[in-house]
Amino acid sequence: MKKEQYQELDGIFHPQKVAIIGASPVSDIATLSLMNTKMRDHVYLVNPKYKEIFGRKCYASVLDIEGPVDYAIISINASYVPGVINECIAKGITGAHIFTAGFSETGLAEGIELEKKLIAAAAGKIRVIGPNCFGIYCPRSGLAIVPESSEEEGNVGVIAQSGSVAESFSYFGKTKNLRFSKIVSYGNASDLDCPDFLEYMADDPQTRVIALYIEGAKNGRRLHDALRYAAVRKPVVAIKGGLTDNGNRVAKSHTGQLTGTPEVWKALFRQCGVIQVSNHDELVNTIIAFSHSLLPRGNRVSLISNSGGFSVIQTDLCAAEGMEVPRFSDTTLKALRRLVPLAGTSIGNPLDAWPIFYKVFQKEGGLTDIIKVVASDENIDSLVFMFDQFRYIRRARKHEAIGHMKLICEMMVEGSLYCRDVMGKPVFLSVSLDPFLEDDEDRQGNLMLKQAFEQNHLPVYSSSEVTIRALGRLYKYAVQTGQAIGS
Amino acid sequence: MKKEQYQELDGIFHPQKVAIIGASPVSDIATLSLMNTKMRDHVYLVNPKYKEIFGRKCYASVLDIEGPVDYAIISINASYVPGVINECIAKGITGAHIFTAGFSETGLAEGIELEKKLIAAAAGKIRVIGPNCFGIYCPRSGLAIVPESSEEEGNVGVIAQSGSVAESFSYFGKTKNLRFSKIVSYGNASDLDCPDFLEYMADDPQTRVIALYIEGAKNGRRLHDALRYAAVRKPVVAIKGGLTDNGNRVAKSHTGQLTGTPEVWKALFRQCGVIQVSNHDELVNTIIAFSHSLLPRGNRVSLISNSGGFSVIQTDLCAAEGMEVPRFSDTTLKALRRLVPLAGTSIGNPLDAWPIFYKVFQKEGGLTDIIKVVASDENIDSLVFMFDQFRYIRRARKHEAIGHMKLICEMMVEGSLYCRDVMGKPVFLSVSLDPFLEDDEDRQGNLMLKQAFEQNHLPVYSSSEVTIRALGRLYKYAVQTGQAIGS
Repeated sequence: MKKEQYQELDGIFHPQKVAIIGASPVSDIATLSLMNTKMRDHVYLVNPKYKEIFGRKCYASVLDIEGPVDYAIISINASYVPGVINECIAKGITGAHIFTAGFSETGLAEGIELEKKLIAAAAGKIRVIGPNCFGIYCPRSGLAIVPESSEEEGNVGVIAQSGSVAESFSYFGKTKNLRFSKIVSYGNASDLDCPDFLEYMADDPQTRVIALYIEGAKNGRRLHDALRYAAVRKPVVAIKGGLTDNGNRVAKSHTGQLTGTPEVWKALFRQCGVIQVSNHDELVNTIIAFSHSLLPRGNRVSLISNSGGFSVIQTDLCAAEGMEVPRFSDTTLKALRRLVPLAGTSIGNPLDAWPIFYKVFQKEGGLTDIIKVVASDENIDSLVFMFDQFRYIRRARKHEAIGHMKLICEMMVEGSLYCRDVMGKPVFLSVSLDPFLEDDEDRQGNLMLKQAFEQNHLPVYSSSEVTIRALGRLYKYAVQTGQAIGS
Repeated sequence: MKKEQYQELDGIFHPQKVAIIGASPVSDIATLSLMNTKMRDHVYLVNPKYKEIFGRKCYASVLDIEGPVDYAIISINASYVPGVINECIAKGITGAHIFTAGFSETGLAEGIELEKKLIAAAAGKIRVIGPNCFGIYCPRSGLAIVPESSEEEGNVGVIAQSGSVAESFSYFGKTKNLRFSKIVSYGNASDLDCPDFLEYMADDPQTRVIALYIEGAKNGRRLHDALRYAAVRKPVVAIKGGLTDNGNRVAKSHTGQLTGTPEVWKALFRQCGVIQVSNHDELVNTIIAFSHSLLPRGNRVSLISNSGGFSVIQTDLCAAEGMEVPRFSDTTLKALRRLVPLAGTSIGNPLDAWPIFYKVFQKEGGLTDIIKVVASDENIDSLVFMFDQFRYIRRARKHEAIGHMKLICEMMVEGSLYCRDVMGKPVFLSVSLDPFLEDDEDRQGNLMLKQAFEQNHLPVYSSSEVTIRALGRLYKYAVQTGQAIGS
């Protein structure tokens, strides 16, 4: 996008001084959120009802603030918003995020009229995000959507028409090992709209992958161009909310936008090179892969598992994603026969060989070396672990199980880093971490492995289906962008 | 199946006295498992290497045991198995589970020959499960596959060619709120095969739904008849392992069975009325639904959510499953407008209305009544909750959050039981429980809701995608079996 437009947007994401208009001591999420970031000393609270909130001075109007302010978060009754926008302009504020709902999304004449008034008040004098949205999370500047979000910066950009989709990313970032460059929830898009944010994040050097949740567009041509602009620069993973008649009806009442048929959206995304996913789980899982992994150079997957039945299912899952699980080379097979016990194992690809997870007490010929052998096979392009072994280790090793697991973590990570950093092949981990697992030791053992991988930017998922689907997305993107050989 | 065949199988699942041949003090899973069930006092340990294991007498041969024995678990070197089978016959044992691998599944002449010898030794004199499998879990008799399995009886039957699929069901049963009538892993099926177990579980009054993992068949006609026999009596949910060339190759080396093309299997399952799923996650999630829920009488879903964006996605997910999210009746809308605060909500279906989760301090017009209003709508056939509210409650209510959550649990359960037991409509819950959630209070709050629902046999999942897909499976089954009106 043009330099001055980029700078304008960048200024909005990185304000110097922020006024929270409608601040309140009672569950005011904007104030709670900003008090937890480095923005805390650059925030002015505004509300004529209070003299003080959380021990800090509260102003009756933004016009009473002594120093300059460049950004406002507005969370007041909808009918007062146009007036307050005028005050913001008078104060010299250049960007405003309007949290308040009750505008065009209601479908009521009154709300539509109010949004028109707001647009007229702002026009050319202040840039507006919203109304009816959660606004910006930007760890570099200290803007935040939830009080629990991380202060760490990352490489994921999120553009979401829905507040709760943005909020959910922001909240679950730590859990999912996602860190963000910036997240924006833009609601009714009365002024700044999806294309603005797409172009900005496309040019933002901090953003490596863009997650998009969109319900509708005001200008189809503009959206097309922005999607294309972004998708040629970095992966854009998108979900269109309201693809069905019912869904469309719900979307209309949610952000009040015009929508199109599923076919139109599908064609739009395909033409622009955008990766379309069909639900939120898939969006998150695909983003994890792009955020952390390099791309595979081909479709040949090696699986290291510890179960025959699951090896079969996993091989079928790879095929469903256009990938294959080829035989290992003779060199690899020969080396594995030397290193892996034969009883109860299947030496081949998948490597269904639980005893390798007990070869952790020897440096030479142990678990790390076995992984390196697989990683070095010229017939494979990526490595997927299916780890579901901790409960067995616990039975066999009893009170030494956690110590044993520590050694497994170290050796699996060492082998995986060799695979990724020396051989240049992606490594994915599926670890048996059921969401409902209530056994604390089981949880501890498996979380240890999850964390060891995540610290090294190796993608982790909790089921083999999800793991292989995420790798499949990377593979398809690599083919589409000429970075891998198609099957 | 014929009465005498049923009784023979039933005897194998409920033995009186069990010999573990090849018992060992070192990570012997069969011994560890049986010592944890009511079978513990009816087990004889056999191994010429030991005089005593875990403080119990160990016999050199099964023939040395004083009293009668009717079932043997054999876990010894493959080459000794045919000889030991002869000893079992001499002892009068009528059923044997052979844990040991190294038979036809190896693809080696030696292994194939050994399996032939085993079959010849057993023929007509003892029934064999396996070799190369985990055998039986049956809480009523005390047979078990893992030391951690529940002693509680349930209504799910599992038939799995793969040991680890059976083991995984058995281990994760508690976590998934699944309880089993019986689980059997049958491996190479040298004698007792999938059709035998299908017919047995079809006639077993304790089994309400059958989960099947199958890699191949020795006799296609026999399998067809057994699948049909079972599927007309109760839901059979099946996954075929090895549907692709690669997968097929892996399956062959796993249980050594002949396999067919994906199309042949698909047609077989469809003809027989079997519900085919494509991966293990789906198998488990579908089984949870059939185990706990009644069937919906139609495809009209009501969604109670707390997010606009996710409401849209969830509505689209319903459509993808052939279901719809229709408008509520005028009566319902009128009642909801009276009970649900207007600000920040969308009163309709989906009911996107977070404030209802704060109406827990009033008996009349509170959360329970709101659920009852939705449940009573004549335009809906089922109710799905998308609960993702605990983190908000925690922000708003601070140290009172857990107490608040307790009230929510009680009121949601009360409303749900009205929906299911009075209105006769299924209720499903999606609760935001990320597998990787590391925040203990978040986990505690959400687990509380999960457990409250599970105690009342209401299906719970951790994502909306999975929840709606599982409900969709029930709906399709209801249509197929004439228990619901098609869309």
